[in-house]
Amino acid sequence: MRAEIISIGTEILFGQIVDTNSAWLASRLPSLGVDLYYVSTVGDNQGRVVQTLRRAWERSDVIITTGGMGPTEDDLTRESIADLLGETMQVMPDLEETLRSRFSRRAIPMPERNIKQATLIPSAQAIPNPRGSAPGWWTERDGRIIASMPGVPSEMFLMWEQQVAPRLLERSDGSVILSKIIKTNGLSESLVDEMLSPLLSSTNPSIGVYAKSDGIHLRLSAKAARPPEAQAMLDALEPRVHAILGDVIWGADDETPAVAAGRLLKERGLTLATMESCTGGLVGSMVTDVPGSSTYYKGGIITYTNAMKIAHGVHPSIIEEHGAVSAETAIAMAVAVRERLGADVGLSVTGVAGPDPSEGKSPGTVFIGIATADNQRVMTGGIYQQHRPDIKLRAAHNALLFLRRVLLGIE
Amino acid sequence: MRAEIISIGTEILFGQIVDTNSAWLASRLPSLGVDLYYVSTVGDNQGRVVQTLRRAWERSDVIITTGGMGPTEDDLTRESIADLLGETMQVMPDLEETLRSRFSRRAIPMPERNIKQATLIPSAQAIPNPRGSAPGWWTERDGRIIASMPGVPSEMFLMWEQQVAPRLLERSDGSVILSKIIKTNGLSESLVDEMLSPLLSSTNPSIGVYAKSDGIHLRLSAKAARPPEAQAMLDALEPRVHAILGDVIWGADDETPAVAAGRLLKERGLTLATMESCTGGLVGSMVTDVPGSSTYYKGGIITYTNAMKIAHGVHPSIIEEHGAVSAETAIAMAVAVRERLGADVGLSVTGVAGPDPSEGKSPGTVFIGIATADNQRVMTGGIYQQHRPDIKLRAAHNALLFLRRVLLGIE
Repeated sequence: MRAEIISIGTEILFGQIVDTNSAWLASRLPSLGVDLYYVSTVGDNQGRVVQTLRRAWERSDVIITTGGMGPTEDDLTRESIADLLGETMQVMPDLEETLRSRFSRRAIPMPERNIKQATLIPSAQAIPNPRGSAPGWWTERDGRIIASMPGVPSEMFLMWEQQVAPRLLERSDGSVILSKIIKTNGLSESLVDEMLSPLLSSTNPSIGVYAKSDGIHLRLSAKAARPPEAQAMLDALEPRVHAILGDVIWGADDETPAVAAGRLLKERGLTLATMESCTGGLVGSMVTDVPGSSTYYKGGIITYTNAMKIAHGVHPSIIEEHGAVSAETAIAMAVAVRERLGADVGLSVTGVAGPDPSEGKSPGTVFIGIATADNQRVMTGGIYQQHRPDIKLRAAHNALLFLRRVLLGIE
Repeated sequence: MRAEIISIGTEILFGQIVDTNSAWLASRLPSLGVDLYYVSTVGDNQGRVVQTLRRAWERSDVIITTGGMGPTEDDLTRESIADLLGETMQVMPDLEETLRSRFSRRAIPMPERNIKQATLIPSAQAIPNPRGSAPGWWTERDGRIIASMPGVPSEMFLMWEQQVAPRLLERSDGSVILSKIIKTNGLSESLVDEMLSPLLSSTNPSIGVYAKSDGIHLRLSAKAARPPEAQAMLDALEPRVHAILGDVIWGADDETPAVAAGRLLKERGLTLATMESCTGGLVGSMVTDVPGSSTYYKGGIITYTNAMKIAHGVHPSIIEEHGAVSAETAIAMAVAVRERLGADVGLSVTGVAGPDPSEGKSPGTVFIGIATADNQRVMTGGIYQQHRPDIKLRAAHNALLFLRRVLLGIE
């Protein structure tokens, strides 16, 4: 099946809202055996929405739309589909009942304009929306399908998972593309490319290489007539990638550096404490994004001044002698926070987030310290980014991935 | 001028890279007097790229493309434009010279396939790329323009600002749309809508209302034949919005809650210290995203356990009696961190980030405490989000905006 995605909304067209729906949907189509050829965005203008739908109707089997399903006069997806197909919208009593009871449950009078959310055309069925007032439309005619969902991501995600994806799967011929993402850190993109070159020439399964803020990611993809075959191809490829790259691989799919480090801490029954200077709490925030992190994370100190570092156990002579941004201070911070917070592992970050240099060191200069009962390690890093939040992001990722490597004994 | 944007790249089509370029470009077109009608994405397939370009050539005056300008065989933007226009690509000696010297400066042999980055067609001029090896193409024929830039954001941004935007501005009739974003917090979207209803019916200048994680944002837009006229319309509208909404307005354009709170601290010569539980350092990280925050931010304590709260000055009886997630503990945390760190203002957050309840309180329950020399305040908030990082994000935004209101004496 050939598919295209159309996002409808002036606020998306103009970048006032970044369209995350299309990327999310695009990533889910291959596993349903649906081939995606085009993604487009069009504003809230009926003429242009109809024109875009018509073009898609001519060249694709499945058209997935998001947005334009609300109650206002700017919401024109239903009108445009009716226009495209030359059919008339009619209020459906059962949908009206559901809509009115939704409002009465919340003791709000239903604005009359909302009634259009209870309409259908003869070729459309309603797709239930458990999280909002706007049902989707499943329109099917002449061997073509238009699946229309609301633009609110949380409503769209659920409608997709529960309703639209299963219906598309029923109609697919069973052939799928399955993917797995493998995440590495510590090697450059060109080095990963070179190491994997014996595998990169294969087109099925295939490997794509992408540079991200937490390292180089690989996307392994396999296309086959049936899901188990595609899975078997991935299962055969993955060990070959691991054999080449080894322990620079730290995670897969949705895993973050904090997940990778947290898993090791948990497995080993170790607790963590952090002392952060230039990252200002970002490492702690990443650690605590992981559900269950309270079992291993004791907490942290954000030492944004030298006085604060000294008050929390860094000896003033170390800062005087080596500077606040130094390997020695990073180690002293990790040792101090480990002791003060009674944790098994102390992790520290000190550096220059910019935009101005500090102590004569340029923005992006970062030192990461780790202290355990019997080990003290420091990593010196230069981060080549321009913006303060980007430098902080990479420094925090580096800290968590360095922690992983030290815990594994591979650093 | 009618424009459309085309992103070229399979990795963007499939959501492996989120297309931030299109939103960025879309937000910059109105001030050049360019009307944007369509945004689309197409994979690295010459037939489909040409089809998409042809459609755009038929209906738009200006086509802006990003991506597909690299040296590999997947990079097909040049070939597709040549195909569309029936022109032949030729290596230009001056471009080849620039390209080769770029490689020799870095002492790398130039792969022969890179030579296509030195080609042009008769209707195209090269657009210099100070940050990368791929020049852009400025193609102009039959009253139509195609501006082709690389997909790497940092290269594209600079090429746009220095080369493409000025050329488009030369060709524009001078009419522009100028916009200003005004940010509020503390009122619901429907209440803002209702309060502004006398102004919302105007189509020029216009006001758009958007719900964001840090409150309700308004986009004021004005279209006029010349920039000063549009600016005058905005300047007349803005005080009317301020008169209606008053001090729930906390910022404009790119400002963040941390910028708004930081500005007040700086103006008043006050220092800040934070104690965070459920946000895990995110408030500190936001504060330190702002350049110059080291002048007012002393640092913070991430107290992810009760023992850690007690060790940093919260009396155990308060936690025993009221629970760690309570107004009383929030106040005690703010008071303690203010004293321990010697700051003028203590700010605290305690709550349940989820996914599981804690102390019988549901995820999203958050208390924010503020302590100054002569004031102690607490804000109780329920955050209706499902995901842990979303709850943390809103809790941190709420904390910084509550701090602003308390400092202003409007809370």
